[in-house]
Parts: sequence; structure tokens; C-alpha cells
Amino acid sequence: MVKQDLSAELISIGSEILLGHIVNTNSSFLSGKLSGMGIDVFYHSVVGDNPSRLSIALKNALKRSDIVITTGGLGPTVDDITISTISKALSRPLMLNRNIAESIKRHFKRRHIKMPSICTKQAFLPKGALAIENTVGTAPSSIIEYGNKTIVALPGPPRELIPIFEKGVIPYLKRKYKIRSIIFTRTIRTTGLPESAVNKKIKRFLMMGGPVMTGIYARPGEIDVKITAKAEDKKKALARIEKIKRRLLGILGDTVYGFDDDTLEAAAGRLLIKKRMSLSIAESCTGGLIADRITNVPGSSRYFDRGIITYSNKSKIAELGVDKELIKKYGAVSRPVALAMAKGMLKKSGSDIAIAVTGIAGPAGGRKKKPVGLVYIALARKGKALCVERHFAGSRRDIKNQTATAALALIMGTDTYFRRK
Amino acid sequence: MVKQDLSAELISIGSEILLGHIVNTNSSFLSGKLSGMGIDVFYHSVVGDNPSRLSIALKNALKRSDIVITTGGLGPTVDDITISTISKALSRPLMLNRNIAESIKRHFKRRHIKMPSICTKQAFLPKGALAIENTVGTAPSSIIEYGNKTIVALPGPPRELIPIFEKGVIPYLKRKYKIRSIIFTRTIRTTGLPESAVNKKIKRFLMMGGPVMTGIYARPGEIDVKITAKAEDKKKALARIEKIKRRLLGILGDTVYGFDDDTLEAAAGRLLIKKRMSLSIAESCTGGLIADRITNVPGSSRYFDRGIITYSNKSKIAELGVDKELIKKYGAVSRPVALAMAKGMLKKSGSDIAIAVTGIAGPAGGRKKKPVGLVYIALARKGKALCVERHFAGSRRDIKNQTATAALALIMGTDTYFRRK
Repeated sequence: MVKQDLSAELISIGSEILLGHIVNTNSSFLSGKLSGMGIDVFYHSVVGDNPSRLSIALKNALKRSDIVITTGGLGPTVDDITISTISKALSRPLMLNRNIAESIKRHFKRRHIKMPSICTKQAFLPKGALAIENTVGTAPSSIIEYGNKTIVALPGPPRELIPIFEKGVIPYLKRKYKIRSIIFTRTIRTTGLPESAVNKKIKRFLMMGGPVMTGIYARPGEIDVKITAKAEDKKKALARIEKIKRRLLGILGDTVYGFDDDTLEAAAGRLLIKKRMSLSIAESCTGGLIADRITNVPGSSRYFDRGIITYSNKSKIAELGVDKELIKKYGAVSRPVALAMAKGMLKKSGSDIAIAVTGIAGPAGGRKKKPVGLVYIALARKGKALCVERHFAGSRRDIKNQTATAALALIMGTDTYFRRK
Repeated sequence: MVKQDLSAELISIGSEILLGHIVNTNSSFLSGKLSGMGIDVFYHSVVGDNPSRLSIALKNALKRSDIVITTGGLGPTVDDITISTISKALSRPLMLNRNIAESIKRHFKRRHIKMPSICTKQAFLPKGALAIENTVGTAPSSIIEYGNKTIVALPGPPRELIPIFEKGVIPYLKRKYKIRSIIFTRTIRTTGLPESAVNKKIKRFLMMGGPVMTGIYARPGEIDVKITAKAEDKKKALARIEKIKRRLLGILGDTVYGFDDDTLEAAAGRLLIKKRMSLSIAESCTGGLIADRITNVPGSSRYFDRGIITYSNKSKIAELGVDKELIKKYGAVSRPVALAMAKGMLKKSGSDIAIAVTGIAGPAGGRKKKPVGLVYIALARKGKALCVERHFAGSRRDIKNQTATAALALIMGTDTYFRRK
């Protein structure tokens, strides 16, 4: 391993974090990115919107860490104190940054909103600070060199922080500290097996010591297998990972749908493009969530034709041609109705595959024979249809999430399922 | 303020946090709950799946804090080390807990899955531990009294941790430490004004010192105003908050849609129930997200009739009766098409209100005249219709989220908008 002994420290600013009004996702995001570059993160701290406490935290951090990253407190309001506090702590007067002033003006112009006068405050930075472009918001992110230390001030909202850190800060740190990335991770993403089954299959890899670590991380309906390697350089790390990865793929077989940041919805999309198939979706209990996930994938209009959310029985009959008698006889949450919904959707849309779900998301509406969490997921293709029954636990949202994941897994498994039939 | 000098410390366990594979939302959740009870949280730490490092962290924590809460590492796999490490660190042997063993069996039975043999490991707890019921998963949460200290072991997945902490741990800590809650917060939720405008309206409250603090927190399309009071008891805190709250409500007027954990979708639902109105939704760029949010509200079947996601032009024509020529002349993302979608949806569903959105969520598909982020949101009622144009920034998901929020705000403002017309 490269020994660079580089350390970073995170200071999150905002009383709303200390009081638990928002979750501080930035620390984890930044830790991950920093440790991935081989930079040790030894301290996380959170302070409120209080200049004197922030000033103490800043000075302590500058004593013990090479890189100090602050998040939050860059907005235009009176409780946004980060920049003024850094300015005082470092004795670097605030100066107008013309680029930032222009960028803030552009931001409001693009959104067709008149620029509020208090936003001019955001164009001031401590003397010598390097402004980093914020393409999403108006918060004036910046990098300040202070002796041999680096201070980075990032905005609190993750949707602003993430692109700024990735595009503006990482390249800067790599250049300045001559960092060669030394920790790599690849993720194998699987669906269709519970955590305990994946654990059993790959147990010997999990217990293996040495420079390559394998771990399991469970998400609802999905299991990730992560392979992490430490090495002197990228090439060596990747070679070590690849060796283990190939063996794991052999064991995990067709439960693997993708790698790294891949998603089930993106994998389903690729499959549909490959098979030149179009998809339509009829949703009851998921209420649009499956279509929402499908359409999170850029370019999903290539295969996703339409979705219908039939929340009422009336709409199941009118939109999907489900037989009224079928609902009466079996209930809206039943295998026959799920199948009728999928077949109705297929016929109506003329798409190649139709998915339909009906279930009880709760918290009310459960009965002994049909408890909360009971879900039917049907898949129809020309001349063929199948339906699976699932029992999920958790909140209304949990059940919606698990049902959507199972429906996407069913799309992934289309060929397998119909081949088996 | 009551001086109880009670301190708590959080230890999150899992290499996946240190490496940034997952965001550690539990620390913020727990900090918020603990500080709300007047318990100071001085330390957060994160350790990997490593028994010796966890053991050191545990012993340090027990020296300096009254309450030590661990999260994660309670699963059935070999890298779940929390319980065995606590057992060794406290010299308390592991013993089978029959209640947990039964509860794990029930969990698998309910889900119609055979119980994997490795899950029996989860039924063992350190001697003297009090098991806390986990209704969501199999992780064996527990409370251990150690001298005058309390150790609480919670599972990592938030959907398991949250109900266990709220139902099992909070009542226990309140009883044991005779805690009277001394920090209260109430949130006023608003929509329709940007952060800078809300800031301007209530500036004098934000700068006010004393035992009541007012703060602003911005979310996409929504602004929360939080009033936090410290007091000797609940009654006093609430009285102080109420005084400020009444004044703020007078200033914020009809931008206020709800309080505390309320959501825009729940508020829209209440309005529809009050007005005895049914809703249908036609979505293009949001791809089902508006319906997903609407149906996250329990009981939404009372007013939500159906949704149609018309992703293709073909489906806009077939499902909503949008004129082909209209799409040709103005494009699918245009005011006339949004209005035609809403009117078509209203006619087809026979519901009282129909919402329609069409826009460019990106990242591709933007042009100079119609850039990524351009969105049209239309609302139709019998004999009336209106359409608003919005320009949003951010990722595909950001634009979907902001569009859905704006559509929900439009439902909330129905009366106002049509009265103004």
C-alpha cells in the first residue's frame, strides 16, 4: 500500500442535523469518496448554526487533519454562517467574487425568477479562495489553501454537494496530493435469492483473509456482493478483484443482473432493448412506483410505452377490461385478477410484455386470509401469462418498494420463467 | 432547563459505511430522537466488521457515555459480529433466547419461506440481555444493563431500527432515566414561495434570541419553518412555540399546507376528501411519481381513481384522446398538449379533478427552445382548465421530484387558482 498518511475531517454545519430534522447523508458520501482515494477520515463532527462553536471546530480540525471539508451553511439566510466564520477564523477578509455573482444571476435567469437581493451575500468569499462552479444551486462552494492544509466548503443539499465534490473537489485533491487511488470495490448485484442463501453459497469467500475482501449487503429484494481490494495501484487492485469476481459469477449464476451502480430497472431496460421488446405496466397497490422506477432510467421511452394505475375497481374494469364478476368472485387482490390485469394491459397497449400487480400495501385493509403484504404479480406475453404470489412485511412504503423490486425481477426473469413453463 | 447530564454515544458497525457503500442515516435519526429527550450526543463513531476494533470502541464508549447505542452487525452472516463482540467485551456468555428463536421462526413462516439454518445464530444474546421485539426483520435487538450504563444493540436497516427504537427503546430510556422531554419542535410546512421570500417575510423571527428558535429548511419546492423551544416541561415548551406559531401563520398565510410530519400528498388528500372530489392523473415526464406519492398516503383509494402514464406519443393519443395534430404543431412538451392531456383524463375518468404533466426530465432530449427542466403542469375541472410553466434544474430524478411537488401544490391551490381566473 502507498503510505501517504493523508487525513481528512468532516464538519457538518446545521442545527437541523443536531436536532435530527434532517439526515446527514453527506458524511457517508464524502467518507466513501475519500477512503476510496486512500485518504483516512478520522473525525466527523456536527455543529449547529453557531459561529463560535463552528470557529472552535474549524481550528481544532486544522490542527489535526490535512483536509477539512465543511458541509452546509452556505445559503443566503441569516443562519448561514459558514463563509463568514471561515473568513474570521482564518483572518481572510470577505471579497466579492465576480464569477460567482454572475453565476448566481444566471441561475435565477434560467429559472425565470427575479434574483432576491439577499442572494448577493453568496457572492462573497474569503480572500484567496478558489470558487468551484455550482451548476445546480446558488451556494458558493470554494477551496481555500491555508498553509499546507486545504479547506473545502460545500453546500448542504446533497443534490448540490455531490456534483461539486465529484467534478470540482476530487480532481483538485488528486492533483494536489498526487493521489493514486488504492482502494477499489466492485459490486455484483443479484436478485431472486435471500441473504442467507447467498451467504451459504459464497461463505468461503466471506471468510477469506488477505488483500481482497468480499462482503454481502442486503437491500429489500436484492443482495449485493461487494469485492474490495487494496493495492499499490489501480491495475493491481482490479486484477485481484477480477479473479474473485469470475469465481463468484460462476457460483451466483443467473441471479446476477448487473454490477456496481447498476439498478434492476436499468438492467430490465437493457434486456428489453436487447430483445427489442416494449413494456407496459398495470399497477394497483404500487400506485405508479414501478413505472416511476422504470422511467428513472434515461432513455426508457425506447421501451416503456405506458402505465395505468387502476386504483379503483371501476378503473380496473374500464381501463383493463377486467371482468366485474372476476373481482366479485375472487376479490381485487387475487391471482385471477392480477392475470386479467396483465392480459388486459397487453391487449390494450399492444406492447410485447405487460406486468400487473395487485396487493394490500396496508396499513389497513388486511384480513386473515388476505393479510397486509400479500401481493400478486403477473406477467403476460403473447399467448402466455404467469403470476407469482408474494408475502412482504413492513410499512406501506416498504411493501410498495418490495413489490416494485419483485416486479422488476420478474421482467428480468421473463425468459427463464417461460422456458420453465 | 432540567440538568440531567445524560449522555449517549452512537457506534455504527459495518465496513460498508466506512467505505461509503451505504449512507449512515441512523446516526442522524438517533441523534434527533436523543436530543429531543434532552440527552446529549457527544460522539458518533463508525467501525468496520472487525471484532477487535469494535471491542475497543465499545470499551471507550462505556467509559465516557451513559448510553451506548450500536447499530448494525446483527444479521445472520459471518461478518455480523456485534452480539458476539459485546458478549466478549462484557464477559457475558451468549445464551439462547427462546422468545427471539420463536419470533424468527414466525418471521419466516409469515413470509412462506423455509428458515435458513444459519438464522438460529440470531437467537443468542449476552446473558441478562433484554430482547426487544423486531416486527420487521429477524435481527435480535436487545438492551443490556451494565453497571449504571445502558447498551442498546439495534439492527442496521432503518426500516427495522426505527420502529424498534421508537417502540422499544425510547419508553425504556424515559422510564429508566425519568426523562421529561425538554426540547420540542414544531414544523410549519409551506409551498409556493422560494426560500429567500420566506426568509424575508419572517426575518425578525429568525434573528430572535431567547428560549425559542425559528429556522428555515428548504426542500425542493417546499420550505419548512421550524420552531424549537427549550423548557422545563412539555407544557411550557408547547406554550412558547404556540405563541410564535400563531404569529408566523398570520404572516405565511395560505402558503402553509400542514404541520410537522405532514406531506403535501397527505394535505392534498385531505383537501380532496373535504371537497368530496376525486382525482385522476396523467403523467408523462414524472413517469408515475405523482401517483406514487399520492398512493403513499393510507386511504388514498378514497379519492384517487386512476393514473395513466403516457410515455409515448401513441399512448397520449390513444389513452387521453390528445389530437395528433396538436403534438405535431406544438410538440409533446407544450402548454396545449398538457391542457389536452388534463382535459382528456378528466373526460375519460369522470373524476372531479385531473392533473397532467409533460416535460423534459433529461439528461438528453433538451433543445435551446425547450431545455431540460422545462415542464408544463395542467389542472382540469369541469368546464375549467389552467396550465403553469416551470423551469427546474438538477438530475433527471431532481426534475421528476420537483415536478411532482409542483403538481401536488397545484392540487392544493385549486380553489385559489380558479378563483383568481
